[in-house]
Amino acid sequence: MSKTQEKVIAAKKASLILANTSRAVKDKALNEIALSLWRESSSVIKAASNDVTLAKIEVEEGRLPKPVLDRLKVDESKLRNIVEMVKSVSNLDDPVNKTLNCTELDQEFELYKVTCPIGVVGVVFESRPDVLPQISSLCLKSGNTVILKGGHEASNVNRELFKIVNEASIRSGIPEGWIQILEERKDILDLLKLDKSVDLIIPRGSNDFVKFVQDNTRIPVLGHSAGVCNLYVDQKANLNKAINIAFDAKVQYPSVCNSLDCLLVHRDIARTFLPKIMEKFEKAGVAVRGCENTKKILDHFPVLAATNDDWGKEYLDLIIAIKVVNNGEEAIEYINVYGSGHTDSIITEDKQMAKQFLNSVDSSTVILNASTRFSDGYRYGLGAEVGISTSKIHARGPVGLEGLITYKYILLGDGNTVSEYVGPNAKNFRHKDLNKKLPFNNQ
Amino acid sequence: MSKTQEKVIAAKKASLILANTSRAVKDKALNEIALSLWRESSSVIKAASNDVTLAKIEVEEGRLPKPVLDRLKVDESKLRNIVEMVKSVSNLDDPVNKTLNCTELDQEFELYKVTCPIGVVGVVFESRPDVLPQISSLCLKSGNTVILKGGHEASNVNRELFKIVNEASIRSGIPEGWIQILEERKDILDLLKLDKSVDLIIPRGSNDFVKFVQDNTRIPVLGHSAGVCNLYVDQKANLNKAINIAFDAKVQYPSVCNSLDCLLVHRDIARTFLPKIMEKFEKAGVAVRGCENTKKILDHFPVLAATNDDWGKEYLDLIIAIKVVNNGEEAIEYINVYGSGHTDSIITEDKQMAKQFLNSVDSSTVILNASTRFSDGYRYGLGAEVGISTSKIHARGPVGLEGLITYKYILLGDGNTVSEYVGPNAKNFRHKDLNKKLPFNNQ
Repeated sequence: MSKTQEKVIAAKKASLILANTSRAVKDKALNEIALSLWRESSSVIKAASNDVTLAKIEVEEGRLPKPVLDRLKVDESKLRNIVEMVKSVSNLDDPVNKTLNCTELDQEFELYKVTCPIGVVGVVFESRPDVLPQISSLCLKSGNTVILKGGHEASNVNRELFKIVNEASIRSGIPEGWIQILEERKDILDLLKLDKSVDLIIPRGSNDFVKFVQDNTRIPVLGHSAGVCNLYVDQKANLNKAINIAFDAKVQYPSVCNSLDCLLVHRDIARTFLPKIMEKFEKAGVAVRGCENTKKILDHFPVLAATNDDWGKEYLDLIIAIKVVNNGEEAIEYINVYGSGHTDSIITEDKQMAKQFLNSVDSSTVILNASTRFSDGYRYGLGAEVGISTSKIHARGPVGLEGLITYKYILLGDGNTVSEYVGPNAKNFRHKDLNKKLPFNNQ
Repeated sequence: MSKTQEKVIAAKKASLILANTSRAVKDKALNEIALSLWRESSSVIKAASNDVTLAKIEVEEGRLPKPVLDRLKVDESKLRNIVEMVKSVSNLDDPVNKTLNCTELDQEFELYKVTCPIGVVGVVFESRPDVLPQISSLCLKSGNTVILKGGHEASNVNRELFKIVNEASIRSGIPEGWIQILEERKDILDLLKLDKSVDLIIPRGSNDFVKFVQDNTRIPVLGHSAGVCNLYVDQKANLNKAINIAFDAKVQYPSVCNSLDCLLVHRDIARTFLPKIMEKFEKAGVAVRGCENTKKILDHFPVLAATNDDWGKEYLDLIIAIKVVNNGEEAIEYINVYGSGHTDSIITEDKQMAKQFLNSVDSSTVILNASTRFSDGYRYGLGAEVGISTSKIHARGPVGLEGLITYKYILLGDGNTVSEYVGPNAKNFRHKDLNKKLPFNNQ
C-alpha cells in the first residue's frame, strides 16, 4: 500500500466520525486553529521566508516566474488576515444536518432529506500560503476530511501550517487523520486513482493542470479549466458605462480567471466606442488583437490582426481580442461557441436585448452593465470561496461552503414492506409534505 | 464529422432555444405527445411485436435471456400507462426559471441565482419500451435536449416511439433537433467523447455497462454501478418486523437494484431469528450463503459456505449472504466497507442504536424498520424517476426532475466596476438577502 493510499484510508475512516461531530466541537477547533496560527506566527513567517529564499534561486535560474516571490511571502499583516479568515468560518452557519424536506409516505412512515458532508475531499493547490488554512477550515466546518497537496515552492510554509492546523484541531476533539498532506508530485496521480475513497477533487491552479486532473481521474472534479470572459457592447449601450466596465474588466487585475478576454462591439457603435476605449487601453499598455473591421476603425492605433487562435483564448495578461459584430444575436452565438461558460457581460440600456442576452448565454454567470471581475465568491457574499466551477452539475459559478455538502435520505418506518403497497389490495402512498425536522440530529 | 457528432451539435443548438421555451408550449407538446401515442397505438404495438419476434430467435439461440421477451411486449394496457405517465409529467411544476435567492450587492446592483436546464443529456437505456417516452418527457419538461440510445432488441419500437415523440413535439413548437436517437452500438463511444457538447450522461442498464460508461467519458455520469443493499437485524429488533422486512427485501422483486443482498444478524438474536427467516427463504427458493456461525446455527438447512466474493456482491437473484455480527458497530463498519452506498436498513427498537446506524452508514438512503425496496423515486413521491445515483455530488439516491436542473447567476448592474470596491476609498458590499424574484423570466 502506498503512503498516499494509507493517508486516504485514514481520512476516509475519520470522515465517518467527523460527519457526526457537533458544531460546538468544530467551532472550538476553528478558534483553536486561529489562536495557534497567531501564537506560532514567527515559525510560519520563518518557514515562508525559507521558501522565498529557495524560490529566488529558481527564479534566477528561470524555473519559476518572478511574481511567485510576492505570493510566497508571509508577514504579520498577511498572517492576521489568515487568522481572521479562519475565525470568520467559525461564525458561518453549520451547513450539515439541515432537514431539506420531509415527506409522509404513510402513517408513521416518514422520509427525511438531510444535508451531510460529501466525505473525503482532495485539494491540489497553487503556492499561495493562505489556501491551506482556508480550504481546511471550510472542510472542517462542513464535516469533510481533506487531503492537501500544495506547490513545491511553498512546501516549508505548508508543512508548518499543516502541523499547526492538525495539532490544534485534534487537541479540540476533531478525529485524528481528518487532515492529510501529500508532499511529492507523484502522489497526485496516486490520489487521482483512489476513486473508491475520495469523493471530490478540487484542483486550484493553471488551466493545464485542471485539464490534467480531469483527464486522469474518475473522481468528480470541482473547478474550471478555462475562464474565457466576453463583454458585448450593444448598439444601445451607455458609452461611459461601456468604457469604464471594459477598462475595469481588462485592466484592474488581468491575471485572474474572471478578467476580460474578448470585447464584442455592435457595428453601429464601434466608430464612437472603439477609439475611446483604445486610448485608455493604450495608456494602460494593453495589446489589442482586432478583427478586420476593428483594425480599420482603429487604423491610427497599433492593433495586431487577430488570428483564429485569438477567438476563445484566455490571456491572463494585458492582451485583449476585439471583434465588431452585426447584432446581439451574433454576439450571443459567438459567446456560446467561443466562451468557456464562465462569465460574460452585456452593456446595454435596451431591456429586451438585455433579457435576450442574459437568458441565451449559457454561462455560470451572466452580467448586465457591470464588470466580469465581480464573478467571485467573496463579492457574491458566499462567505468564502471553495472555487469557481464551470461544470453544469452539483455547483456552478463561484462556489461557497454549499459545494462541500450533499444530502442523504433517512426513512423512518415501523415494519413496512413493499408488498403491502402492490397488488389488488395495495395501500396508497400519501406523499404529503410535512413541515418537520429529523427527530434526532447527526451530532 | 460523424453522424453522432452532427446529432449532438443539432441538440446543442436546440438546447439554447428549448431552455427559453415557455411552460405553456412545453406542456402543450407533452399533451400532444400523449395524444399521438394513443392515436398511433396500433403501429407502436406492431413495432414492439416485431421486436418480440426477432428477440425470440435470439432467445432460442441463447443470445438473449428469456425475461427480455416479456419486457419487450407492448399491449394496450402497457401503452395506456405510458400515455398517462407522459400526461402526468405535464402536470408537474416547471422546474426552470425559479429564483433560488437574490442578494443585494449594493444599491441597484442585484445578484440572482436562477434555475435552468443542464443542457444536453445523453441517455443510454435498457430494452424496456417505456423508457424512451418517460425520459424524453422529463427532459422536455425540464428544458433539456436529449440523445437517446436504446437496446438493439427494442430498436423497432424505439424507432416508432421516437418518430411519434419527435413529430408531436415539433408540431407543438418545440425546436427541431431537441430529441435525437442513436442506432448503433459504436455510436455510444462517439457520444461519450463529446464532453464539450454533452452535459450529463444517464446510463440505465447493467452494472458492467455503467462502469464501462464511467471509464470512458469525461462527461458527468448520473447513475449507479452497483446496488449492494444490506439489512442489519439488531439485538433489540422486533422479530416479526425483522422477518417480514428481510423476506420482502429479498423476495418481493429480487432482480432490481434495491433488493437485499446481505443480511447481518446480531449474535444474541441469531439463534431465534435465523431458523425462522430460513424457513421462509427455503419455501421461496432463496439460496443462502452463510458465514461460519450462520452455517452452525442453520445446520439443518442447506446453507452454502460464503466465500470472500459473497461479501459486497449484488445478486439480482434469489440468493442471499448471511453474516452473524457481534454488535451494531461491526454491522456499520461492514456496510461502509462492503456496501455500495445505495440503500441499507436496520431493524431495531433501540432508539440510540437506530440513530447511530442512520448517522454512521454512509449511503444515499438509510432506513429504520422498513424494506430496502422502498428506495425508489415513485415511492419517494418524486413524481418520476430519472435514475438512482450513488455519486455523492449533484444528486444522490432516487433522482427526480431536479436531477436535470442546474442554476446560473444573473447579475444586474448599472455601470459597476470592481475598482470602486478596492483600495483606500473602497465601497462596501451590502450582501443583503432580498426576497425578490428575477424581474423578467426566461421564457
